[in-house]
Amino acid sequence: MIIVKIGGGGGINLQAIAEDLAGIEEAIIIVHGANAVRDDIAARLGVEKRIITSVKGYSSVYSSDELMEVFSMAYPGVMSTKLVELFQSHGINALGLSGIDGQLIRGERNKGIRIRDGDKIKVVRDNSGKPKTANKKLLKLLLDNGFVPLICPPVLDENGRAINTENDDIVRVIHRSLQANAIVQLIEAPGLLDDHKDESSLIPSISKAELAHLEERLGPRIKRKALAIRKLLDEAPTKVIIADGRIDQPVTRALGGNGTVIS
Amino acid sequence: MIIVKIGGGGGINLQAIAEDLAGIEEAIIIVHGANAVRDDIAARLGVEKRIITSVKGYSSVYSSDELMEVFSMAYPGVMSTKLVELFQSHGINALGLSGIDGQLIRGERNKGIRIRDGDKIKVVRDNSGKPKTANKKLLKLLLDNGFVPLICPPVLDENGRAINTENDDIVRVIHRSLQANAIVQLIEAPGLLDDHKDESSLIPSISKAELAHLEERLGPRIKRKALAIRKLLDEAPTKVIIADGRIDQPVTRALGGNGTVIS
Repeated sequence: MIIVKIGGGGGINLQAIAEDLAGIEEAIIIVHGANAVRDDIAARLGVEKRIITSVKGYSSVYSSDELMEVFSMAYPGVMSTKLVELFQSHGINALGLSGIDGQLIRGERNKGIRIRDGDKIKVVRDNSGKPKTANKKLLKLLLDNGFVPLICPPVLDENGRAINTENDDIVRVIHRSLQANAIVQLIEAPGLLDDHKDESSLIPSISKAELAHLEERLGPRIKRKALAIRKLLDEAPTKVIIADGRIDQPVTRALGGNGTVIS
Repeated sequence: MIIVKIGGGGGINLQAIAEDLAGIEEAIIIVHGANAVRDDIAARLGVEKRIITSVKGYSSVYSSDELMEVFSMAYPGVMSTKLVELFQSHGINALGLSGIDGQLIRGERNKGIRIRDGDKIKVVRDNSGKPKTANKKLLKLLLDNGFVPLICPPVLDENGRAINTENDDIVRVIHRSLQANAIVQLIEAPGLLDDHKDESSLIPSISKAELAHLEERLGPRIKRKALAIRKLLDEAPTKVIIADGRIDQPVTRALGGNGTVIS
């Protein structure tokens, strides 16, 4: 089984991904984002998107009640429908679920995020949290019956309420349950870049140990990604490939070594 | 197995439905609407909702590409997420799917709807159609494993594209596949009313034959509903109860004979 994480940026070539996946025999689980759709809907509805950065330097979207509604419009709404339709029309039997469906992904609500407010430290609470477990029985049931699960946030908290979470963490708990042979992350860049402004500065391969060093040099958003990949490799050995989601045959080429290979 | 159809009106008491279903032992399939949410999102986004009436007198929403996006925000997006969260927090293992997920509901795209345009008859095309088959294998897989499927449009057309459809028709193809013991339709009224302005004019029971006569007296929107119920009873014998979705224990009371019983 391979996990394909499709980034939520507007530049990802969804058509090319569908054409490519239609020719791949191995079982596939897809985890998809919808950032661009979410931001577009929020802007059209006049809902403010606020980014908060924790004192540890990790950035995330502040998941207010109002923004949770926009999330549900974007992730299980527009984006899942768009992808399932695209995949179905290419002969891929996709089935979209958010993490709350059938208790697919269970997690814990954040107790509060410590942020800097001028000179002071303030604790803010929102509808976000961390996934802890994936429902192995449900995922196997779908895979064994030929479905391609297409997964997105929200996930369930301890009380059966919906919380927003990072897709990197959803990928991690799925990998822990089912041990993926490879994890392909499709983004709007050729892979991890040494200089994010220079697409020719691709890092073709990197070890987990080197990744820890690289983290020091990178900004808060990438810091979270690098940490997520290290945690992913802690769960079970696999090959993680961060690859270009804008090109033809993005998954086949990533599995062939195109992009940044981390193992 | 019983099918519960939850109307999409804003007055439906979703909390009461969740509390009620938590105490019902029998297997349940839910088909839900989201009209109120859809209209609210369309208004906030400034997307026009146009109602068309066929020459035969059936009314429906004109499903433009733009409105299909609003549908996906409302049905598998906001409403499915809201209901799954509500049910999960009441201990009901709900799993939301639209008709396109895993080819759950397959149908045929409308070739065109004949409408009157002044003195002329015009054929208009949109993204709507009729469901033809429900995926029995997928529904049984979910029911046999303890999930409560929560189903909404869109459904798949012949080419794997998403089309909008009537929930009454979705209920019908599910009943054809799995023969429901009872079908409860929760609406914002005590049941079928003899005078739609007078809630005390409830028709407590009606036969299929009488329903055909009643159709003659009713407006285009209700005409569609009455026809849908007649078709439902043509598929396989069952008890259809149209009942009040605004009250406590709406499903238990409907199964006990509260509302309009059609058999």
